Amino acid sequence: MTIIHPPQPRTALWVHAHPRRGSLNDRLFRAGTEALSQEYEVATSDLYAQGFDPVLGERDFGEPAGRPGNIAALAGQALAAGRAAPDVREEQAKLAAAELLVLQFPLWWYGPPAILKGWFDRVLTEGFAYGDLDPELGVPRRYGDGGLVGRRALVVVTAGEDDRSIGSRGISGDIDSLLFPLTHGVLWYVGIDVLDLHVVHDADGLGAEGADRETGRLLDRLKGIDAQTPQRFRRLSDGDYQGTRALREDLLPGRTDLGIHLADGA
Amino acid sequence: MTIIHPPQPRTALWVHAHPRRGSLNDRLFRAGTEALSQEYEVATSDLYAQGFDPVLGERDFGEPAGRPGNIAALAGQALAAGRAAPDVREEQAKLAAAELLVLQFPLWWYGPPAILKGWFDRVLTEGFAYGDLDPELGVPRRYGDGGLVGRRALVVVTAGEDDRSIGSRGISGDIDSLLFPLTHGVLWYVGIDVLDLHVVHDADGLGAEGADRETGRLLDRLKGIDAQTPQRFRRLSDGDYQGTRALREDLLPGRTDLGIHLADGA
Repeated sequence: MTIIHPPQPRTALWVHAHPRRGSLNDRLFRAGTEALSQEYEVATSDLYAQGFDPVLGERDFGEPAGRPGNIAALAGQALAAGRAAPDVREEQAKLAAAELLVLQFPLWWYGPPAILKGWFDRVLTEGFAYGDLDPELGVPRRYGDGGLVGRRALVVVTAGEDDRSIGSRGISGDIDSLLFPLTHGVLWYVGIDVLDLHVVHDADGLGAEGADRETGRLLDRLKGIDAQTPQRFRRLSDGDYQGTRALREDLLPGRTDLGIHLADGA
Repeated sequence: MTIIHPPQPRTALWVHAHPRRGSLNDRLFRAGTEALSQEYEVATSDLYAQGFDPVLGERDFGEPAGRPGNIAALAGQALAAGRAAPDVREEQAKLAAAELLVLQFPLWWYGPPAILKGWFDRVLTEGFAYGDLDPELGVPRRYGDGGLVGRRALVVVTAGEDDRSIGSRGISGDIDSLLFPLTHGVLWYVGIDVLDLHVVHDADGLGAEGADRETGRLLDRLKGIDAQTPQRFRRLSDGDYQGTRALREDLLPGRTDLGIHLADGA
């Protein structure tokens, strides 16, 4: 008799960074985590509710305060010595267990709120999220490889502006470029595949009907998430950067925009 | 008899966001503020030393926690009602008094540390840094105009990577694009003219001689600061965006990179 094992529950971590209950973000968070729970075992990091402290500082270094040293290396050494802060270890455990990561936040000053920025600063420690050497290239595994390889991430961002202001020629810069430091510099750096952004425009003026519509649109997005193809940033290990640091001259010659780091140069 | 008044002392605010005494950043901060003091009356915001809390939250809103509302508007209303948090008012007073702003920080995850990101989130309140309507255009004064117009800013950033990795075709994205959300999205948004970035590369491996060299290079930069021409982002009020939100189709047609927002399209 063949025993067909049920599939293991899939795992997700939903990180939420908005201060107010009753906000549009709060609603998207509740509806989104509930819907995702039908397919995934969903852990959450509700950073404001947790009172997460985003300031990378002395408690993360494990060395006497007077001693100079590279901040990232000090935090990595503290982690290796079992002296990382408890809240950091807890977030790392949730992240390590998740195959899908959702980051949800309002766009403040064209980036994530400080509480989420500091979640990256503190949780993505050297030795946990990155730092291993590629045995062939002899360089650190990063950009498509790294401590969190094999995971996928969805970024859900609400913006007060419309799709003209943060569109491809919008005065505020296009949202993909504005969030490149997050999608490429954080997520892809540590090996996480990044799905297309989920952007909610005009978030401050949606009204009840608009909020219903956007909630539905997020749930539709989540429903199809397993079938979605990630953005394809170039991998460091593929040779496009000559295994080192700058894009080969024969690839998209002359271009210097951030789009050159997409594998199709879009 | 003609009385020749001495020039008023010029005023600067130097915001510093590094946790460690004895670090390269600490050294640049001390040497830089001392040198600048020969020409300017220099106030400082040493965010780690002050224990600045970067988390925009309930104490900034002045409304019962359950009440929904636009976060930026709530903070603006609290400010207008004289109920802004004391630390925010103090930072705003220093900023309002400064004609030159220096922002100095290490590049963490391709952006400012959370403690500095949250200084923007909390201090640059609606009604202080932006929010007035342009009487002619009927749109908010921003991008080259706004609450802090007439000031200049120098961004001093230390990076662990070299000028190949964060250069124009570097795998990490070029530093001007990575910091566009700061230079354009924060500073230019509120009316502040932005000088060319001052980037210290390979900051973790400089050694004593390299640290001397970089300290000297920063002092040279400061010495000539009054003669330096700011980057020229396009102004919202100039009509390049048709007074609204997206770049006119006849300007740099087809391009969608962040460089289109420089007045010379570089």
